[in-house]
Amino acid sequence: MPSKKSSKKINPPKGTRDLYPEDLLRQRYITNAWRDASIRCGFEEIAGPTFESTDLYAVKSGDGILNELFQAFSGKSPAEIEQVQATGTAPYALRPEFTPTLARMYAARSKELPKPCKWFTAGPYFRAERPQRGRLREFLQWNVDFIADDNSSESRAIADAEILSTIVNLFQLLGLSNGDVTVAYSDRRMAESVLREFGASDSTLSDWLAWIDFIPKNPRIAERNAHELGLTQEQHDLIIGFFFDQKENSELYAELERQPELTKEYLAFQQRILSVPEVTDAMSQLQRAGKIAENLGIKGWGFQHNAIVRGLAYYTGLVFEAIADGERAVAGGGRYDNLIELFGGPPTPACGFGMGDVVLSNLLDDKDLMPTGLELREAVSRPQASIRPDAFIVPNGDEANEPLVHTLAANLRRGIESESWLSREDHKPWQQDRYSVAPMHARISYKSTRNLGKLKADAAKQHAKFLVEIHGPDKVELRDMDQRDAHTSSLGSFSIDPAAENYIGNAIADRL
Amino acid sequence: MPSKKSSKKINPPKGTRDLYPEDLLRQRYITNAWRDASIRCGFEEIAGPTFESTDLYAVKSGDGILNELFQAFSGKSPAEIEQVQATGTAPYALRPEFTPTLARMYAARSKELPKPCKWFTAGPYFRAERPQRGRLREFLQWNVDFIADDNSSESRAIADAEILSTIVNLFQLLGLSNGDVTVAYSDRRMAESVLREFGASDSTLSDWLAWIDFIPKNPRIAERNAHELGLTQEQHDLIIGFFFDQKENSELYAELERQPELTKEYLAFQQRILSVPEVTDAMSQLQRAGKIAENLGIKGWGFQHNAIVRGLAYYTGLVFEAIADGERAVAGGGRYDNLIELFGGPPTPACGFGMGDVVLSNLLDDKDLMPTGLELREAVSRPQASIRPDAFIVPNGDEANEPLVHTLAANLRRGIESESWLSREDHKPWQQDRYSVAPMHARISYKSTRNLGKLKADAAKQHAKFLVEIHGPDKVELRDMDQRDAHTSSLGSFSIDPAAENYIGNAIADRL
Repeated sequence: MPSKKSSKKINPPKGTRDLYPEDLLRQRYITNAWRDASIRCGFEEIAGPTFESTDLYAVKSGDGILNELFQAFSGKSPAEIEQVQATGTAPYALRPEFTPTLARMYAARSKELPKPCKWFTAGPYFRAERPQRGRLREFLQWNVDFIADDNSSESRAIADAEILSTIVNLFQLLGLSNGDVTVAYSDRRMAESVLREFGASDSTLSDWLAWIDFIPKNPRIAERNAHELGLTQEQHDLIIGFFFDQKENSELYAELERQPELTKEYLAFQQRILSVPEVTDAMSQLQRAGKIAENLGIKGWGFQHNAIVRGLAYYTGLVFEAIADGERAVAGGGRYDNLIELFGGPPTPACGFGMGDVVLSNLLDDKDLMPTGLELREAVSRPQASIRPDAFIVPNGDEANEPLVHTLAANLRRGIESESWLSREDHKPWQQDRYSVAPMHARISYKSTRNLGKLKADAAKQHAKFLVEIHGPDKVELRDMDQRDAHTSSLGSFSIDPAAENYIGNAIADRL
Repeated sequence: MPSKKSSKKINPPKGTRDLYPEDLLRQRYITNAWRDASIRCGFEEIAGPTFESTDLYAVKSGDGILNELFQAFSGKSPAEIEQVQATGTAPYALRPEFTPTLARMYAARSKELPKPCKWFTAGPYFRAERPQRGRLREFLQWNVDFIADDNSSESRAIADAEILSTIVNLFQLLGLSNGDVTVAYSDRRMAESVLREFGASDSTLSDWLAWIDFIPKNPRIAERNAHELGLTQEQHDLIIGFFFDQKENSELYAELERQPELTKEYLAFQQRILSVPEVTDAMSQLQRAGKIAENLGIKGWGFQHNAIVRGLAYYTGLVFEAIADGERAVAGGGRYDNLIELFGGPPTPACGFGMGDVVLSNLLDDKDLMPTGLELREAVSRPQASIRPDAFIVPNGDEANEPLVHTLAANLRRGIESESWLSREDHKPWQQDRYSVAPMHARISYKSTRNLGKLKADAAKQHAKFLVEIHGPDKVELRDMDQRDAHTSSLGSFSIDPAAENYIGNAIADRL
């Protein structure tokens, strides 16, 4: 320990931030939006320790993370000091990501916890990487996870859709458009199958995935790496064709079209790939989740993009990235169905994402979507999302009405922007008159039952204020859950169409 | 680094917490109250890094803290790994307290920052001590600090008073009474002078202060320690008499009264002490701050108690503790006028305190003042204090009206509880009908000027909504700062008495 000094200028550690009042308000603007979007989409906040046992990250984090850990030890414990002196490693690590903590927490109480667990958290994370624009050594991260106890294809699809739509809900809340940022998604199993076709093995698969992940970042270097993986130029082109055969990469696609020979071979290759059962299953699962996600509000924001594979080892299905201006990843995540079991829990399907505050605040600055001065103070002081659900939406038992549950949930969670605000030239998301119907906390049931009594009990258990029972697009019953008498609790029939006079969102807003 | 394992149950590190949704809401209830009390009392939020250079704590933290640091290093840096292997110490430490960071941050920008800086922060802190009830290795702490650029006795008194009254504002907000918790304060210089009278020297003073600090915790052991410090039984009794000569320690006082001889000697000793200039100065400064603090709302909550000395080395004047049930310290702090200079800043008087979430939540549980279930969800969802000041209170230039500025600020910051709520038998602080006038964010000016134009400019710079100009207890002018025209901005004359029909608080609340 250095000796006491009389007067000394000490700087903050490299890659960390001192937040003065104005900086703090800007950060608060972002964390408020994170909380609001999560809560409105029905997620509940949790928190874990800032440091964990180093072992926790050895279980499944990729080498990239393991090499960038800040390690910690108690300076009071002779045993711990002895360990660092002898080995150069410490028993604890400042958390570099949240997922291992989440898996540990769920595994520890999997039996008692209500299902599904829809959890979010926002706090500091640490990576000992070189600081640069968008990357610090200490940053805030928002994590949102949907943990189910039901492994059916339907259950996984709704979880994936809820996760994707929560990201879009945040972007809309912050005034970003789908011209600013989009959500590209794929299924990790598709990429794995294709790469195995070209010779990837269990032991080399992660190198291949890392290669695909790297292509959009630097195509030229990636091409060189391809040769190192043993690919011929033709194989390289076929793979590029498959992974980047998207309207967003029309240049590559056009290249492919200019070479008829290659195209022929490509089509044969594609057919071969599409007959692999794992690929077929992944594609139909993606379509299923994508359809629900569209109902839940990601239409125009999300699209399938085969080249999304994500670096981390543990993803088992859906993988996705929110990409700003076609290049910067603002958020990323996916499905990790095997992870909770690794931490001693039961086999548990789960899906989630992380988003850092540094990249997001840079994006908001670039798009002129960060308030300042008085507007910042007012924006940060607005009432936040209600922890108590404003609405709990259930179908009336008719299967045809089930997609309407998602449509209405998306509308209520997003709110309805006012004509007057939309018609103003320089409208900004923080302005007081933005909404004619303010965003609400809207929940849906994940129970497989269609029994209305059971669904109502679910709503009551979650402390919902209003129950919304959907009989069709123009007939929705609203009930006040605080009125015990079923007869008096019914408040009338409404429409789910925001343009209708009797829009259900207006009816709820009037009563909140 | 341990190798990857297949399935493993890993526990959270000892003394840290996994917060599931219900736990998180309980913690949020506390952090919301911290933020509300700070903001209403005019403090602005800041934040610093979670870890700092270990050197930062070597500058001035006591040995108690230095021995309990969690140390950290980058596992990616060969130089840092080499350091820990060679020395068993690391370049970084998880912050054990906030004050050194605050001093560093102020020193780094002392020239540009608006004065005074009234700052608060709430976040995680770390100490490698043995976990026990009320003490964890990772906990949240609320820090509130008043940093001035004016060293006058008056400026220091108002800063001390604002700090003391912010603690009381929090307690009232949480529904605690002055039967549950009180704020005991003293001036470190008094204790130092007395102890020097009995032989304490520069080098032993901190041991003597630690001894005094320890007496209420364990009087029997403290008595033994006194002999180790070389005190005779008579000297011991005199010191006890001086430090604990309070109505709160009437037992000790009664003992003293039963021994006429000792009492005589004690009175002589007291007289001697009271002629030491530093003691006289400390006492008059305490009285000055205490008087303002009473106007600011601590009447019935705060009292002078000579035995409060605080353990940390850096206090230079006021020292205080919030004590629950006569024994548990819930918060502590004091004045540290030399600290910012130690970090390379200009000589800067400052005063502040810290409060942990663990002890506070235990206290709320014990007093049945923590909501649960639906009430907890509703309490946490209430709108929080406005970052924009609701009111900025200025005197009209007549010195006699200046104390009224503090009285009104205290009333507005506390809010007025409703008759209906008070008359209900089992009223709880989180109930919806608690206030007839809800608490507000009320600021006052610290400028020495009495020029109304300059004060108004100060209010405008701080984005205040309303200016309140005090002409007397029953004549207070209210002006809307958003109306530029001075003529139309005047909203009428009101009273500062909460019982009056035309109470200014009602007038402001109606317009917010």
